[in-house]
Amino acid sequence: MDEPSGLDRKPRGRGLTFSRRTLIAAGGVGLATPALGLAASTVPTSPAAAATGATKKVTIYAEQIGTTNQYGYGLEPGKPTIPGPLLEMYEGDTMEITLVNNTTQRLSIHAHGVDYDTVSDGAPINNSFNNPGETRTYIWRSHEMTAAAGRRFMPGSAGYWHYHDHAMGTDHGTAGVLRGLYGGLIVRRRGDILPDKTFTVVFNEMMINNKPSGSTPQFEANLGERVEWLAIGHGNQLHTFHLHAHRWADNRTGMLEGPNDPSIVTDNKDLNPGSSFGFQVIAGEHVGPGAWMYHCHVQSHSDTGMAGIFLVRNADGTIPAAASADIARFKGHMSQMSTTHDHTK
Amino acid sequence: MDEPSGLDRKPRGRGLTFSRRTLIAAGGVGLATPALGLAASTVPTSPAAAATGATKKVTIYAEQIGTTNQYGYGLEPGKPTIPGPLLEMYEGDTMEITLVNNTTQRLSIHAHGVDYDTVSDGAPINNSFNNPGETRTYIWRSHEMTAAAGRRFMPGSAGYWHYHDHAMGTDHGTAGVLRGLYGGLIVRRRGDILPDKTFTVVFNEMMINNKPSGSTPQFEANLGERVEWLAIGHGNQLHTFHLHAHRWADNRTGMLEGPNDPSIVTDNKDLNPGSSFGFQVIAGEHVGPGAWMYHCHVQSHSDTGMAGIFLVRNADGTIPAAASADIARFKGHMSQMSTTHDHTK
Amino acid sequence: MDEPSGLDRKPRGRGLTFSRRTLIAAGGVGLATPALGLAASTVPTSPAAAATGATKKVTIYAEQIGTTNQYGYGLEPGKPTIPGPLLEMYEGDTMEITLVNNTTQRLSIHAHGVDYDTVSDGAPINNSFNNPGETRTYIWRSHEMTAAAGRRFMPGSAGYWHYHDHAMGTDHGTAGVLRGLYGGLIVRRRGDILPDKTFTVVFNEMMINNKPSGSTPQFEANLGERVEWLAIGHGNQLHTFHLHAHRWADNRTGMLEGPNDPSIVTDNKDLNPGSSFGFQVIAGEHVGPGAWMYHCHVQSHSDTGMAGIFLVRNADGTIPAAASADIARFKGHMSQMSTTHDHTK
Repeated sequence: MDEPSGLDRKPRGRGLTFSRRTLIAAGGVGLATPALGLAASTVPTSPAAAATGATKKVTIYAEQIGTTNQYGYGLEPGKPTIPGPLLEMYEGDTMEITLVNNTTQRLSIHAHGVDYDTVSDGAPINNSFNNPGETRTYIWRSHEMTAAAGRRFMPGSAGYWHYHDHAMGTDHGTAGVLRGLYGGLIVRRRGDILPDKTFTVVFNEMMINNKPSGSTPQFEANLGERVEWLAIGHGNQLHTFHLHAHRWADNRTGMLEGPNDPSIVTDNKDLNPGSSFGFQVIAGEHVGPGAWMYHCHVQSHSDTGMAGIFLVRNADGTIPAAASADIARFKGHMSQMSTTHDHTK
Repeated sequence: MDEPSGLDRKPRGRGLTFSRRTLIAAGGVGLATPALGLAASTVPTSPAAAATGATKKVTIYAEQIGTTNQYGYGLEPGKPTIPGPLLEMYEGDTMEITLVNNTTQRLSIHAHGVDYDTVSDGAPINNSFNNPGETRTYIWRSHEMTAAAGRRFMPGSAGYWHYHDHAMGTDHGTAGVLRGLYGGLIVRRRGDILPDKTFTVVFNEMMINNKPSGSTPQFEANLGERVEWLAIGHGNQLHTFHLHAHRWADNRTGMLEGPNDPSIVTDNKDLNPGSSFGFQVIAGEHVGPGAWMYHCHVQSHSDTGMAGIFLVRNADGTIPAAASADIARFKGHMSQMSTTHDHTK
Repeated sequence: MDEPSGLDRKPRGRGLTFSRRTLIAAGGVGLATPALGLAASTVPTSPAAAATGATKKVTIYAEQIGTTNQYGYGLEPGKPTIPGPLLEMYEGDTMEITLVNNTTQRLSIHAHGVDYDTVSDGAPINNSFNNPGETRTYIWRSHEMTAAAGRRFMPGSAGYWHYHDHAMGTDHGTAGVLRGLYGGLIVRRRGDILPDKTFTVVFNEMMINNKPSGSTPQFEANLGERVEWLAIGHGNQLHTFHLHAHRWADNRTGMLEGPNDPSIVTDNKDLNPGSSFGFQVIAGEHVGPGAWMYHCHVQSHSDTGMAGIFLVRNADGTIPAAASADIARFKGHMSQMSTTHDHTK
């Protein structure tokens, strides 16, 4: 069976040695401390700050998932997942991705948002891909904002990005993307609030995280947890992502920078091919626990199964009886646990 | 015949007892005064402010429109409209919607943007709908922004939202939405500028406000009036809303918060299923009175009739001769008056 | 053969008398100086500032391109280009477009973003078009932001806009747009940073700048040049514009207004019919020179040729050997030079 993906999946035992935090590309002492997420400063103040950027080495295995026509990236051989592991870094950090191609097809890894030389682009036109069986390292850098003329700044790398194959099937990786070779990439600005959990949700043709109608992911959190959503669009179709009972500012963080932040607040946003966005909400804030729908708002898409459940449990982790009934109504049987990246574990 | 929709339609006699303002969910003395719209403060300053939230009770009747296959929500029995009545509230207010289902089909009312328990979601999976003939109350709350960690704020409810059926035909209300069960919902922030008029314009499959080519709404204002547009997308298709000779900031209000507001100014915006946005313009500002086109900018859509007229009359309410000729050219005969929500009546 | 378009195309000789700067509608002494782009003030401070607006007269010739079914706007008779000339003005300026229709079909010019009377709208319903052989002047005005109630401002005209035919084939100019009658229009705010070059890239059905797969434009710059992209969508389809290795803030300028600017940074944005956006990047910043892909991220669109190359040369103008190989790989033969509007020439 295909695995729930990711770096931070619920550990099966306390002995699991890697954790979500280790994948934040931050070797420096200061970066992985709890204080970081709440640091007051959000402005890079000196070149020295940039100099603190850490380099994180990650090995990713691209593999077929069992005998299906699905493929995934994984952190361990034999454990490909869809989506692939959530990768995170701070502005200024570097990530060295050693990609092991354990398939019989040409493939690559192409990142949005970060900095790379052409040899790490992941595009066949740049001769940047792995032949079958080949191992190759892709280097992704990132940077903080820099002053431009006047009062303006060239933007830093922070954002809710993603990565995907750019070489399987066609020079754009259409077969690889269709079959599951994609994942989330978050570049954080120093001082950003860290969530308790991150959900990666990918609308890809008529599937969610490559799951068809009836087996779409169920995302779960306890009432009051700070939950981060990273939404990614792939394929060929028009999609819009709608979440019931929770809304976010349509800006970099999903929160307002202050009372004069002009951002639109929304609960429905276009999610078209190659796009991604993210936001944080407090699970059940203002609305309480329950089984809340998320779905594509293109009517024929939601009707044919591009829909799933965001289960907000009670604060103590128990499931409200009504929510259980609602989920049973939605599926007939409890859906499988979805991929969540739990920052608290 | 189907009715022009809405709360604030031009009264047929002075005896009409409800007015637009009564539907702003604001029982408090201070909220419905003219001063409100121009209040200097735009920032919630204390919990006490939130405590002033009022509760407004509204009864809405969902009915078939004559013997057509169209349905509408209305404020009075026998008077369904498409779109349904424009509903407005201030952040912190609550609206209790008593929905009377006078049809032979299951239906509901689902709101975007506001806060509700699962029982008021309007989704069948939450067992939240009206059976034929059934009356049921849905409670929508709202909230002001709240401080998060650092300098950030979790966003308040203010926005150009909408409501729609989520239960007729399918679990997503596809038949209800297709046939007209939708309307506008505006949550205002205290201090927001109130418009003189609000137009609700809904792109739904190849129709505008469920009117096909040749009978699309004509929106009207006098030169200099502050006109608010609330644009809503439904159905399955890609649409973009384009307005001639008027433009707006692509942010929460359509105006700039100050000289450093980075928002893009636009006159053409994607309007895809489940999305909504709004803005205010001064009718004819910088361009004068006239018959201005609005239309979907997807070429085949505008060519096949997803287009209408925004008539800016002279300041004294007379119609420029050229505008009359332009409208005659557009339609061959004066189009029917559209639904407008006139704040000045 | 159809010409590379535009005002600022690489001059074939030093004798070429018109330059990009002359098309900035700014007769005033202060406006065309190099200092302008770096002026500290970005805020209109007085009505007097607006009064400095200049009027620029431009004659544009709409013509068939050879014996093809393509049409273009051009600055000289016999030299139509696709896209048409890049037009630029400052907020407060006026542009008088004398359009000469050297074709056998009805056509017009309709601008987004700027101010015009109905007679200059370009829409047939406003009787605003050129019959075959007819010459007609369209007047476009612009304005700076103006104070509204409270702290708010009605937005000024600054933006990455565009113009297009609105009369050939249908009342919306569908045939004219399909065949190439479109171009870029930039309204700058005083104090905006001027780029070294501007590229206009138009996604129109399955073409880029009306070039099909295999002959799409190649955009070029030297490492470190400030390059401005103006992206425009036309036709009927869903498109998203993706640029490798370069990203921008999704706001008015593509740069951040300051450390608290909440804008999302992106490298992939929806580019649907009637829409346009722009941004500035430093060519190769953080990534170095090379042949970088740009393409529509709708997978089937990129696979069938909605893709091209952004060539970042070395700082001295030489082409890295790897880039030459990459381009050869992309095309088999060097693609033709694309339309660039070079501010440095």
